[in-house]
Amino acid sequence: MIIVLKHGASTEEREHLVEWIKNLGIDVHESDGSYQTVLGLIGDTAKIDADLIASLDIVESVRRISDTFKCCNRRFHPDDTVINIGDVQIGGGAFAVIAGPCSVESEDQIVYIAKAVKQAGAQMLRGGAFKPRTSPYDFQGLKGEGIKLLLTARKETGLPVVTEIMSASDLDLFEDVDVLQVGARNMQNFDLLKALGQTTKPILLKRGLANTLKELLMSAEYIMSSGNPNVILCERGIRTYSDYLRNTLDLSAVPMLHELSHLPVIVDPSHATGISRIVPPMALAATACGADGLIIEVHNDPPHALCDGAQSLTPDEFAVLQRRITAIRDAIR
Amino acid sequence: MIIVLKHGASTEEREHLVEWIKNLGIDVHESDGSYQTVLGLIGDTAKIDADLIASLDIVESVRRISDTFKCCNRRFHPDDTVINIGDVQIGGGAFAVIAGPCSVESEDQIVYIAKAVKQAGAQMLRGGAFKPRTSPYDFQGLKGEGIKLLLTARKETGLPVVTEIMSASDLDLFEDVDVLQVGARNMQNFDLLKALGQTTKPILLKRGLANTLKELLMSAEYIMSSGNPNVILCERGIRTYSDYLRNTLDLSAVPMLHELSHLPVIVDPSHATGISRIVPPMALAATACGADGLIIEVHNDPPHALCDGAQSLTPDEFAVLQRRITAIRDAIR
Amino acid sequence: MIIVLKHGASTEEREHLVEWIKNLGIDVHESDGSYQTVLGLIGDTAKIDADLIASLDIVESVRRISDTFKCCNRRFHPDDTVINIGDVQIGGGAFAVIAGPCSVESEDQIVYIAKAVKQAGAQMLRGGAFKPRTSPYDFQGLKGEGIKLLLTARKETGLPVVTEIMSASDLDLFEDVDVLQVGARNMQNFDLLKALGQTTKPILLKRGLANTLKELLMSAEYIMSSGNPNVILCERGIRTYSDYLRNTLDLSAVPMLHELSHLPVIVDPSHATGISRIVPPMALAATACGADGLIIEVHNDPPHALCDGAQSLTPDEFAVLQRRITAIRDAIR
Amino acid sequence: MIIVLKHGASTEEREHLVEWIKNLGIDVHESDGSYQTVLGLIGDTAKIDADLIASLDIVESVRRISDTFKCCNRRFHPDDTVINIGDVQIGGGAFAVIAGPCSVESEDQIVYIAKAVKQAGAQMLRGGAFKPRTSPYDFQGLKGEGIKLLLTARKETGLPVVTEIMSASDLDLFEDVDVLQVGARNMQNFDLLKALGQTTKPILLKRGLANTLKELLMSAEYIMSSGNPNVILCERGIRTYSDYLRNTLDLSAVPMLHELSHLPVIVDPSHATGISRIVPPMALAATACGADGLIIEVHNDPPHALCDGAQSLTPDEFAVLQRRITAIRDAIR
Repeated sequence: MIIVLKHGASTEEREHLVEWIKNLGIDVHESDGSYQTVLGLIGDTAKIDADLIASLDIVESVRRISDTFKCCNRRFHPDDTVINIGDVQIGGGAFAVIAGPCSVESEDQIVYIAKAVKQAGAQMLRGGAFKPRTSPYDFQGLKGEGIKLLLTARKETGLPVVTEIMSASDLDLFEDVDVLQVGARNMQNFDLLKALGQTTKPILLKRGLANTLKELLMSAEYIMSSGNPNVILCERGIRTYSDYLRNTLDLSAVPMLHELSHLPVIVDPSHATGISRIVPPMALAATACGADGLIIEVHNDPPHALCDGAQSLTPDEFAVLQRRITAIRDAIR
Repeated sequence: MIIVLKHGASTEEREHLVEWIKNLGIDVHESDGSYQTVLGLIGDTAKIDADLIASLDIVESVRRISDTFKCCNRRFHPDDTVINIGDVQIGGGAFAVIAGPCSVESEDQIVYIAKAVKQAGAQMLRGGAFKPRTSPYDFQGLKGEGIKLLLTARKETGLPVVTEIMSASDLDLFEDVDVLQVGARNMQNFDLLKALGQTTKPILLKRGLANTLKELLMSAEYIMSSGNPNVILCERGIRTYSDYLRNTLDLSAVPMLHELSHLPVIVDPSHATGISRIVPPMALAATACGADGLIIEVHNDPPHALCDGAQSLTPDEFAVLQRRITAIRDAIR
Repeated sequence: MIIVLKHGASTEEREHLVEWIKNLGIDVHESDGSYQTVLGLIGDTAKIDADLIASLDIVESVRRISDTFKCCNRRFHPDDTVINIGDVQIGGGAFAVIAGPCSVESEDQIVYIAKAVKQAGAQMLRGGAFKPRTSPYDFQGLKGEGIKLLLTARKETGLPVVTEIMSASDLDLFEDVDVLQVGARNMQNFDLLKALGQTTKPILLKRGLANTLKELLMSAEYIMSSGNPNVILCERGIRTYSDYLRNTLDLSAVPMLHELSHLPVIVDPSHATGISRIVPPMALAATACGADGLIIEVHNDPPHALCDGAQSLTPDEFAVLQRRITAIRDAIR
Repeated sequence: MIIVLKHGASTEEREHLVEWIKNLGIDVHESDGSYQTVLGLIGDTAKIDADLIASLDIVESVRRISDTFKCCNRRFHPDDTVINIGDVQIGGGAFAVIAGPCSVESEDQIVYIAKAVKQAGAQMLRGGAFKPRTSPYDFQGLKGEGIKLLLTARKETGLPVVTEIMSASDLDLFEDVDVLQVGARNMQNFDLLKALGQTTKPILLKRGLANTLKELLMSAEYIMSSGNPNVILCERGIRTYSDYLRNTLDLSAVPMLHELSHLPVIVDPSHATGISRIVPPMALAATACGADGLIIEVHNDPPHALCDGAQSLTPDEFAVLQRRITAIRDAIR
């Protein structure tokens, strides 16, 4: 941490500050310039509130120079993390496509779609049982019953299943689920993250609506520092002033997260855009910039889907896309 | 809901769409213009997914014309809601200032500050016991012990207390707390909102980091439609590309929310700006544009506060501000 | 345009509004629902101020249903526009890479880079002569002298040249330039757009820092409605709350603009990210989602570049990228 | 400027960097910590491209510690700047209200409104002659004729006039105008700023749609470093994801700009909100947080205004507001 003092800071105030910092067990290197004085702090500065230091009268500015994330930091773990889910791998060069409906609606629906996406080449099945909806009057999901139907579809197809958990108190219901998803709205529900950190299941952690990459990594840190190293990061579009599309898909997050962290990074082009016609080009773009996988909404009958039909591909559209994804994967080898 | 069909939509597809809508129990008024056809839907269109309709080939655009929020809607409840907390009132012309430290740190600290803010004119005491922090390595609050200390401070001063709840599973610990706060990061933690809707306690609902006014009102709707009408809305700054301040305080939310809803609206200038020097002018501005109250961080020793010291006023600074707030209140009568 | 009247609007006020609209030469279809009345306006509603109508006491809401852009609208011009620049084509399936330094610095520099990017496969040369800089104390470009050096490089290599114009009063200096670029900060400098509309040169129009797709298209409309149909749209990253990257590259703009307009759309991954390591993956992603071209910064000696060295590729890095772009182009055929 | 080197940076690369910096005439203080090495640069670091340094392999991070703005910096000019416009003063405790229509439409209109706002207490008259409009098909203003009508209104009332200039080539037409306004879309039209810097007229500089406070100050710096010290800053709302209001009025910019700069800061609540009902509360809030003035749209007949009628107050509404502003001014003394 670097503290720049204001020109003309009194010696007394300066000594008072230096002493206060040293009492926290942190070394201070003082460097007097012609115009300004700089204090360099060496030690575990994570315990210092930078905003607080910045508010002192004699302080011009404060900068942290070390990262505050550790478990997920590539610097301390240079090799890619590979997440194993049954026979499926994500990360470290392994690429996986997760496909399925926004919501599980019935056994027929989920089994039909599971078979269709498997045949097209998907490696995992997604489907919402607990649905976070902006309005209390919208469909909230089949809940426990939905999870049972997902497991039926897994039995029929062998595809591992991914589904969203909204509350730690529901954990028992997810015992047989392969990957637990944390939705964008819960990315900073820290009690949920800590509870998931005490499981050993892979966690698919979606970036929040307007969260920075650092905040996403700090949320991964909550899970990992609680004991669970199996985290998959997911970019799903951020809120801007977009006029035609629901969110703005931030694909540059993919290479940037790969540089900062060893965790795998996948992309959700369906929620990011909200328009099924725009999903295929963005899925191809995500593949081209190095994503470790995709999560895509597929529905057998989009116009009658109980939620988010507008952004779902039909199984046929998905099959076409899957072939194009493979072509891009081959091209970037 | 208004559906505009594309020029050249086939009669067959159009009839198919109209029939589908009528099957949902909704009337359709068809209006053929020289260039475009417009369908006007009359009935409970809340059950229709507008994004889905918009994705159909023959549809040009779709617009909702009725609000999706009901319980908190001023149209259906023209009079201001007044929330009673002991002898304190918020809303309907009654104005209250809530003050106290970011975190409860010790009995001495919280009792000292409680007495100081009471003397300066505050009507309620705030203090964090459960602290949502971006980093798992930062101080997470005294939890249950912190709530006990808050109640001690209430006993000493008579000030009702406000503190944040992060998880429905902690509800028992909050039994004697006067007002439960939902933090910005939990504004769309729908399971928590529903659980709070089953209590009768006043809920202070903070606007999320990047949430719209409609989303804030829909979250209030979760609480109210679950049975608890006692909701206080709180603007606390939104995320933008601000360079010098932590967030951008959106004060125009105050008159706009008053127009849309009958619920009281208060403002948190401390979290919005992150700099104690900027807190007083923003507190005065919030008062001038009609806020029903303020929630302000006050700490006896900001440089040693365990969190957010940079944005805390000293008791003396708070006393000065309290007098200026009163002057503004008198001026806008 | 659709106007929804408030429940309980008086007959007199309603008649007054309808008459006022009809006086503007616009037909009004009135449709009375059980709860609300809807007025459908048929005719040239571009002359009506929707915000004004919305502000009337009896009006609930107002929606435009027709697009306000015409010249660039795909609806009225279904085929892709192809821009011809010498032997180079952009749009309609033709893909072009524009490469070169941020700033023209010297004859040696620009000729050297021009030869290098030509050899690597670039079709056009870019280089800034007039540089818009946030600070008046930063390097502002070689201006007229820089344009002469660009033309020298064109003579040596045959590559058409692209360079930015900041003011209509400089137009004479750009007489021999092949493509005139309008920078992000000037996207809504309407006097400049009108002046460029009176030339016949291709215009590379960059999206503004925080402008919507509709605003970008309306700025294209300024150029086109003034008489110049040769506009190339360019996505170059938008301003958000990004923490590690300068801007957020909005690649979903590419397929969305292609759907709305017949104009070619290229992408600038260099300004969007600001970090040379992130440029190649984003260039590949842009190619994969259907961009008609790329504009990429290349500098022979990035650490000594006079501006934006951090985001420039070396000629060798560019040559590698160019081969990978070709592979992606082959994969999406 | 502080440069933090990566752990393990080679001595050779480090010496190469230090030498390169010293060749620019800048002193380097090297400070070796247990984990990281920090270089402190002393001298005119404005000439160094921080992004470039940050891109070097051996560099961990770079931070500027000195401000890049000088002329407008309060540090170098502690006293408030007071702008004199005839008998009117803005800044240094002097408060002025500028009122008038969005567009000048006719002599009758502008003279009528000028008299009305003068009687209500306004000190200056605003009115658009050159109108920047998103669409080329919208009303573009009366241009030179509009300026003449403004001068007629000034003659009738004695009120100094403020109007927007869009292009340096129009400067002759503005010879008799009292204050030249730079609109939000032109905040970074640097050629216009430089041209205005060569006049002696007060410039009302509006903050751009999504510009930071630093960028606003750097644009003021363009005008001031060109020779014209008479700049008035204006906050007019920024672009966010607001759902009910056109922009988000960033009132915290007022105290923050006052801390950073000695220039006066005024607020435009009309463009910021776009809804006339929300204008008065935001005008009061701006006054309460210390703005040096307001610029407010007033129209005798808002429903028939040629632009932005929805956000205009009637003269009667303005007169009421003016009295309330005075009450707030009295309260904050």
